[in-house]
Amino acid sequence: MSVEKLATKANDEGAREKLIETASQIMREGDTIDISFSELSVRSGLNSALVKYYFGNKDGLMEAILERDMDNILEQIGLLIEKDWPPEDKLRHHIGAVIDTYYEFPYLNRLTMRLIRDVPPEGARNIADKYLKPLSEAYNIFVGEGIKSGVFRDMNPDLFYSAVTGAADRFFTGKLVWKYCYGREDFDERMRDAYREQTVDLIMAGILAK
Amino acid sequence: MSVEKLATKANDEGAREKLIETASQIMREGDTIDISFSELSVRSGLNSALVKYYFGNKDGLMEAILERDMDNILEQIGLLIEKDWPPEDKLRHHIGAVIDTYYEFPYLNRLTMRLIRDVPPEGARNIADKYLKPLSEAYNIFVGEGIKSGVFRDMNPDLFYSAVTGAADRFFTGKLVWKYCYGREDFDERMRDAYREQTVDLIMAGILAK
Repeated sequence: MSVEKLATKANDEGAREKLIETASQIMREGDTIDISFSELSVRSGLNSALVKYYFGNKDGLMEAILERDMDNILEQIGLLIEKDWPPEDKLRHHIGAVIDTYYEFPYLNRLTMRLIRDVPPEGARNIADKYLKPLSEAYNIFVGEGIKSGVFRDMNPDLFYSAVTGAADRFFTGKLVWKYCYGREDFDERMRDAYREQTVDLIMAGILAK
Repeated sequence: MSVEKLATKANDEGAREKLIETASQIMREGDTIDISFSELSVRSGLNSALVKYYFGNKDGLMEAILERDMDNILEQIGLLIEKDWPPEDKLRHHIGAVIDTYYEFPYLNRLTMRLIRDVPPEGARNIADKYLKPLSEAYNIFVGEGIKSGVFRDMNPDLFYSAVTGAADRFFTGKLVWKYCYGREDFDERMRDAYREQTVDLIMAGILAK
């Protein structure tokens, strides 16, 4: 069968989405952003010609994964901003969601950084415009609202964004540290919940005006 | 000249330290942990046979860099613990120092993770024992002291360690984000100072008992 025919048939079966989801799972399980087309083909049960057909090269696949995950995040943040909640409730909810996101997609920050570093400058600007700027703007809105109303201490929302996402991300990229440092294999949802609770409290206590 | 003779001569001139320092500079400037022996040889002005002689392979070089940087950090923390300061002063000083460290060595966490991932399990445990466990123990001591005396809220020091180092690290690995997202090239010491001030305040306000 030609690649085009293969693709037409595969399209009907949601092959592109399946490849993205399988790649995402491989990166999550292996705590890595290095993935081979052949492993992807074997794990998804889809012809490796399709991988090339849909994504061209590895960067293409990486961008497709980033797009799927980030679109979802930006949609959630958009809905949160529109809610009629006090700023502290929005922020508390948001920090918890960031931690849950990094638990689900522990590769997300590394993937973003890899792409920004490896694609040509124009592509990097494109990624920044599509995903990072909207995130930064969202922070300026809902942290800014809290500062204006006096619930939050005065601070720079972009620097705050850095601190929050760094704190949220670090724990889950440290799965191996947990294993070798503390001899623990129980890097599970209970651990995530404990980290979420303590970290949300820490940051909220840190930003709330006294 | 044989490699041994070359090395004897180079030893007298501190060649090993020079190679480590040059490699560290390359990683810092390029915001990367990918480094080639040939670049290292050109930049240091030292024969590439010496690079092989001292470090064997890339992991050997990476471990030597990690050792130099981490020994320095552990020494500083050891001195801090022994100081006759209240726990909140120790912690405030320490968080600032972590941020300064990631500014100076932005590759440090990525390097640690890469080694833990890539070396055999025995080597990974060795890295954890030498560098990560002492750090974890230090947190348990000086965060634990503050919890016991009631200055700090009750929390898990290991989870707190994760949040602090993640927050400290993220900003500086985000140099490229700063460039593409905000169009800013001014990722300098003033920026570091602003980030240090805000983040230290955020975390201290977060952990201090009300």
